[in-house]
Amino acid sequence: MSQSHPSANIRWGIIGTGYISTLFVKDLVIAQNHSSTPARHVIEAVATSSLNKGLKFLEATETTLQNPKIYTKQEDLYADGQIDIVYVGLPHSMHKDACLNAIAAGKHVLCEKPMAINAKEVDEIIALASQKKVFVMEALWTRFLPVIRELRTLIHEEMVIGKVSRMFCDFSCDMGALPSTSRIKDRNLGGGALLDLGIYTLTLSNLILDGQVGEKALQSEISSRMTVVDGVDHSVAIVVSYPSTQCLGILTASLESTTERDFCRIEGSRGVIILSGPMAAKPTSIRIQRYNNTTDEVREFEHPGNGFYFEANSVASCILAGKLESDVMPLAETRRIAAIMDEVRKTGGVLYPQD
Amino acid sequence: MSQSHPSANIRWGIIGTGYISTLFVKDLVIAQNHSSTPARHVIEAVATSSLNKGLKFLEATETTLQNPKIYTKQEDLYADGQIDIVYVGLPHSMHKDACLNAIAAGKHVLCEKPMAINAKEVDEIIALASQKKVFVMEALWTRFLPVIRELRTLIHEEMVIGKVSRMFCDFSCDMGALPSTSRIKDRNLGGGALLDLGIYTLTLSNLILDGQVGEKALQSEISSRMTVVDGVDHSVAIVVSYPSTQCLGILTASLESTTERDFCRIEGSRGVIILSGPMAAKPTSIRIQRYNNTTDEVREFEHPGNGFYFEANSVASCILAGKLESDVMPLAETRRIAAIMDEVRKTGGVLYPQD
Repeated sequence: MSQSHPSANIRWGIIGTGYISTLFVKDLVIAQNHSSTPARHVIEAVATSSLNKGLKFLEATETTLQNPKIYTKQEDLYADGQIDIVYVGLPHSMHKDACLNAIAAGKHVLCEKPMAINAKEVDEIIALASQKKVFVMEALWTRFLPVIRELRTLIHEEMVIGKVSRMFCDFSCDMGALPSTSRIKDRNLGGGALLDLGIYTLTLSNLILDGQVGEKALQSEISSRMTVVDGVDHSVAIVVSYPSTQCLGILTASLESTTERDFCRIEGSRGVIILSGPMAAKPTSIRIQRYNNTTDEVREFEHPGNGFYFEANSVASCILAGKLESDVMPLAETRRIAAIMDEVRKTGGVLYPQD
Repeated sequence: MSQSHPSANIRWGIIGTGYISTLFVKDLVIAQNHSSTPARHVIEAVATSSLNKGLKFLEATETTLQNPKIYTKQEDLYADGQIDIVYVGLPHSMHKDACLNAIAAGKHVLCEKPMAINAKEVDEIIALASQKKVFVMEALWTRFLPVIRELRTLIHEEMVIGKVSRMFCDFSCDMGALPSTSRIKDRNLGGGALLDLGIYTLTLSNLILDGQVGEKALQSEISSRMTVVDGVDHSVAIVVSYPSTQCLGILTASLESTTERDFCRIEGSRGVIILSGPMAAKPTSIRIQRYNNTTDEVREFEHPGNGFYFEANSVASCILAGKLESDVMPLAETRRIAAIMDEVRKTGGVLYPQD
């Protein structure tokens, strides 16, 4: 198979045409010109509430020339036999139904994070996917970035900072200007800092404090506090501890302040690693400070687009290989983080209608 | 009363001649030349295990010329009618008995922090002090630094960063080189990161997140995690939340890593304040970053000695005024923090023989 013209097509059906779908589909277009792409990403169809919205989406994502179908009913997209995989880019509270409908129609699914509102909903999705034998993954794109692969090698294989004892990670975006009707502040749409931002800090702590993911992961324990406005968490602080390795993760997320570029500090017995970037979802630099060396070592990671195409290409590889889940983002990992978020919300008193 | 030659004497009896006592007494000497000193600090006597240790202490603290008495039995110091106030600079586990003995002898007491191992011991000390009508204070010297007075004015009166929503504070010192027999790693001597270092982060969070102290302070709730080695906490993370003001304090302390100079970040609705210095016990700089201003405002605080003399002078003023406790560091505040530390240790499984 030629790398520049892969023979296989992966035909995507896109549900939802908001901000995140726009970024994702723009990256699918970039992925087509990416040397490591395992398949040609075809935008087969888009489902949105009006034809006009659909046309605007095609323009914004530069997919007009691909001439995707525009469906104004999601059911029509699920029924489309030309579609291999459904990408779900809706508000959190609509993820479960979209996933279940797509899976029921025999489609593979890539669903934005969080996969669902709570672990119970995640279980429903996993159960149906298992029965229908389709590939399903939560779109935790950060895990697929080369910077994360490098970070894990440095920490767990090369052990450049020795035994990790503690890490801090913050993901905060000041959303004070957003109205209380915004999705992110609306309890009925699964709003709050934890599900939108905190999920990335939990993801990073799992990756940094543990060499394994999902079922193989180490047991952790958590403590947490939230501040709650109109039923959703505006700020959350989580302490994760690993009894077997005696290390602590201090994870914070907030809608009321903004993280500095150095958003994550990892402390080990032989040095410190600082992760930097525009946000915890997108590290772009690893800075290694070794205790026995006065000069920092910095590794920069830049790439075109938003960085979603690493994830998209990995998903394409899984589907071409007939896999039902990703080794990088297995379903057990989605389930594990959903259960942690349930526990944090319960402690903090944030309950959604779905709970 | 002339400021350079105050007419009143405060006659100190020093119990313990280790590191902290040395620093404190050196600062008492500096305080005598301090323009705002309300009394002449006289080193009346020192109690230590041998005459030789006592002589070395006088030399190290440059108090030889004052010709203090050296007692090799603490009882003799308590019985000395020339002593107004006893300074207790012993390991934590010996604080309670020293305080009770000094108070029983009718002495005022300044006791190094933590005042005692747990809240129960603090209660015993407070009860006897109340009965004997002497002044007692926990030596939380940081509270008396001009930088802290300025910080509180900026936050609570001028509200330069608006409503505070969140703060982070770390106090960590890598003590990996210390043997397991060190006081700080010995369970029988009240070792661990919380009582030695974490107490400062709790102190700062109370000062920063609340305009009041002690009995007038706001109700807070805490969550915490510890890592424990040989029965003492090597690392602790505490999240303090204030239900009435919806703000969070994220406080950490560790014996396994070292805090950067910017050890505390305070986030508000209109800006951020960064506290810097060699350690959380001793802030030396306040940096104000206002959201509507690209230029940071920095205030530096430097002073001769270790900074203990602000505390010593405040204690002298209280005694001259016949007060039985300090408004800056009232006994209710000592009691409050002791109870929080009890709760954190209980959750983390660190119990001392005194508990």
